[in-house]
Amino acid sequence: MSYNKAPSITAETINQKVRIFTYEPCGEIVRHARRLEKEIYENPGSLPFQEIIYCNLGNPQALGQRPINFFREVLSLCDNPSLIDRDEARALFSPCALKRARKIIESLPGRDSGSYTSSQGVRGLREAVADGIAARDGFPSKPDNIFLTDGASSAINMMMQILIRSHEDGILCPLPEYPLYSASIILHGGTMVPYNLTEDSGWGLEIFEVKRCLEDARASGLTIRAMVVINPGNPTGQVLSITNQEEIVEFCRKEGLVILADEVYQENVYTENKRFNSFKKVARSLGYDHHDLSIVSFHSVSMGYYGECGRRGGYMEICGFGDDVIDEMYKLASLTICPNIAGQILISLVMDPPKLGDEAFEIFMVEKEETYSSLLKRAKALQKAFSGLEGVSCNKFEGAMYLFPRLRLPQAAIKAAQLEGVSPDVFYAHRLLGATGIAVVPGSGFHPVSGTSHIRCTILPGEETITAMVPRLQAFHEAFMDEFRG
Amino acid sequence: MSYNKAPSITAETINQKVRIFTYEPCGEIVRHARRLEKEIYENPGSLPFQEIIYCNLGNPQALGQRPINFFREVLSLCDNPSLIDRDEARALFSPCALKRARKIIESLPGRDSGSYTSSQGVRGLREAVADGIAARDGFPSKPDNIFLTDGASSAINMMMQILIRSHEDGILCPLPEYPLYSASIILHGGTMVPYNLTEDSGWGLEIFEVKRCLEDARASGLTIRAMVVINPGNPTGQVLSITNQEEIVEFCRKEGLVILADEVYQENVYTENKRFNSFKKVARSLGYDHHDLSIVSFHSVSMGYYGECGRRGGYMEICGFGDDVIDEMYKLASLTICPNIAGQILISLVMDPPKLGDEAFEIFMVEKEETYSSLLKRAKALQKAFSGLEGVSCNKFEGAMYLFPRLRLPQAAIKAAQLEGVSPDVFYAHRLLGATGIAVVPGSGFHPVSGTSHIRCTILPGEETITAMVPRLQAFHEAFMDEFRG
Repeated sequence: MSYNKAPSITAETINQKVRIFTYEPCGEIVRHARRLEKEIYENPGSLPFQEIIYCNLGNPQALGQRPINFFREVLSLCDNPSLIDRDEARALFSPCALKRARKIIESLPGRDSGSYTSSQGVRGLREAVADGIAARDGFPSKPDNIFLTDGASSAINMMMQILIRSHEDGILCPLPEYPLYSASIILHGGTMVPYNLTEDSGWGLEIFEVKRCLEDARASGLTIRAMVVINPGNPTGQVLSITNQEEIVEFCRKEGLVILADEVYQENVYTENKRFNSFKKVARSLGYDHHDLSIVSFHSVSMGYYGECGRRGGYMEICGFGDDVIDEMYKLASLTICPNIAGQILISLVMDPPKLGDEAFEIFMVEKEETYSSLLKRAKALQKAFSGLEGVSCNKFEGAMYLFPRLRLPQAAIKAAQLEGVSPDVFYAHRLLGATGIAVVPGSGFHPVSGTSHIRCTILPGEETITAMVPRLQAFHEAFMDEFRG
Repeated sequence: MSYNKAPSITAETINQKVRIFTYEPCGEIVRHARRLEKEIYENPGSLPFQEIIYCNLGNPQALGQRPINFFREVLSLCDNPSLIDRDEARALFSPCALKRARKIIESLPGRDSGSYTSSQGVRGLREAVADGIAARDGFPSKPDNIFLTDGASSAINMMMQILIRSHEDGILCPLPEYPLYSASIILHGGTMVPYNLTEDSGWGLEIFEVKRCLEDARASGLTIRAMVVINPGNPTGQVLSITNQEEIVEFCRKEGLVILADEVYQENVYTENKRFNSFKKVARSLGYDHHDLSIVSFHSVSMGYYGECGRRGGYMEICGFGDDVIDEMYKLASLTICPNIAGQILISLVMDPPKLGDEAFEIFMVEKEETYSSLLKRAKALQKAFSGLEGVSCNKFEGAMYLFPRLRLPQAAIKAAQLEGVSPDVFYAHRLLGATGIAVVPGSGFHPVSGTSHIRCTILPGEETITAMVPRLQAFHEAFMDEFRG
């Protein structure tokens, strides 16, 4: 018998599907930022900035967004239900929060918040979510079709696991894309079939382009299972027009494709002439029901005015799947037994917030509006700053939480990047970070049309932070352009 | 162009790997129980019992186990940090909890509990976990080697995803097994290589049997990547002796296998002459370090005296993997961005509970001891009840949360089961549920040696519930045996 003294597991011997995908929002730029942070900590004053501004992730509360007080009160009470009936609690919690917490606790297994729940989520909380969807769309929604999930990411992974059978199964995805999609498709052994969004028309989705991609993919032997649509867009920030959504619905219906509707930014729409419409609403408005078309809608507690991303809460609404498929999804969900309870509670609050007439309503609305108006102010300030930079054009900001400015860099910069073996956007983003402490994601992490360079920058830093970072960004960019102008 | 009016996704057209695995603890027995529950709700008095007793899952708090108050206080404060500095909070929260919550909040990104954290979990909380492991084992543990996870299940899924490259990769697993393992191996496209535990020696693990399975598997062309050991055992309730663990360590070291150590029941040991030893401690005590052997230890907040399963918190400690592999694991974890924050906080509390000298210590110990002594009482009562049934033998209960009694059923019962197209244990479990409302998992869901029949029953129902359920169990069993005695 041979003795294998050395551990047998190395990066070369693990599942290579894990190695080949990339996920840049948490990737190399973050490692670089952490190294700088360590340097600041160990040698204060050694760098030209005092802190890293993390613009790489849509992480609202890490950048100072205040949580909605009502949500936190309810969570806090549900975590410790014995508080609810204590007299002293009235000094710390609003009557509305006490009432809501009591109702939620009543709906939980064992009337406590520490039990496993149904793998689909607590029925009472799914009812709240379904009612919220129905109120939003004007069409009915059933709790049986709702799966509560640990954020949208785990729901998206689950749908890929259900849909993908082999590498001959393709999933249509927009480019630029949120890289969870390509990663999840690779991990589950399928093939990503990209369709390009058109930057010149504000990252518009052209149905003839999607159709061309579908037909090419089919001609190459792929079976196309589903079409991913991210609306509002990430990283591109556009909001689809209803006409566009109708085209997509008609297309997917004709072609027998599931619509995987990433609708996590549904409460991040900032433009007056557009509003969010769910794909289910658009389909039902066209007269199509669950016999005509399969739609999965993903939502999350991470974005919007709530921004509770560390909680990992979300739902998916499954329309147009048979009970046999839902049973299999339930079984798959049961492998991790249930989504976490705080996330389940939060998504029910997001979909059923205080209403007009509730005592908590006024304060809730003030908090919500403050967050929105501040987000809009910050987006405008950053958009203006990027647009004012030499060689940079910036998309119109309609929704979501990101700007995705395009960089037209001097040839010498492109050559310098080549010499370092990286793409120009990666070169630029690391130089920006090293000079200013501002961490943005190189656009190539979102796989845009090749030959173009972008960066993704969240609009979330606080107003004061943006005021401080804009001059640093401008000074860096000017120096960078001067250095490489040639 | 052809119009596909019908949705294209049916159980026949989804990923068939999802269809073929089974996960009985949340499977058909639960669907049956839910139907009965609905019947009780809609037609009170129509069944010979008033409620379902869910003995299918180790779900402590759903069955009445009280949470540890200190843990809940800290969670409650972390959910709503503005409480911490309010004078009124002193009436509701202990000084110890206020202090701990303040410390945790200081360690979180943005000093709030709603942000995304590192994909590996908050560093400060990982430090608490690593310190707890070091104190438990007497050997150092590094926060860089800790991944906080949404319960142990998601960690186990992640390791299978890392280790399995194709169906030619095998993972050694005990039979009877916790079916997450076979399910996860199937889903990730690998091959489960079972080794039998020996019921006659109290579900002992015989290393020659494991070796035989390894060699047979290798002879058939498989590459064996890892060996799963569940200690204390699920569903089998045994605690491994240190000699046995040493054999396993030597074996895995010689054969170059990763030890996947499911140690989630480490605080559920009830026998006086055995105690829990982590595999890492055993390996280090033998003088082996991370150069000699790769070990992954899984732990969770779901079990023990805490039983906070709905929170979905846990950790895995990774020993003997290179930084390159840890980087890939980090990337994989980053796909769902981070584990939920309440689970992260709880696992830090579980590994760093109040200590002697802390003001909260005394109450904490009282609560903990009450839970333990009650668990032991309940286990004994159930074990006695099962052992007293005709044709039933029951394993000695050493650890974990389950009894796994063996049924020797009359031939006529076996024939009746055959006629219904199910195995005898399934037949028995559904008859038991229909007659008494007691939901247990048919043993075949854990894949024991074929030809044997078992059921898995958790010891968790409250003492009063057990007192009430035992006579129902006995009466049912007697009637069942009479019916089929022939």
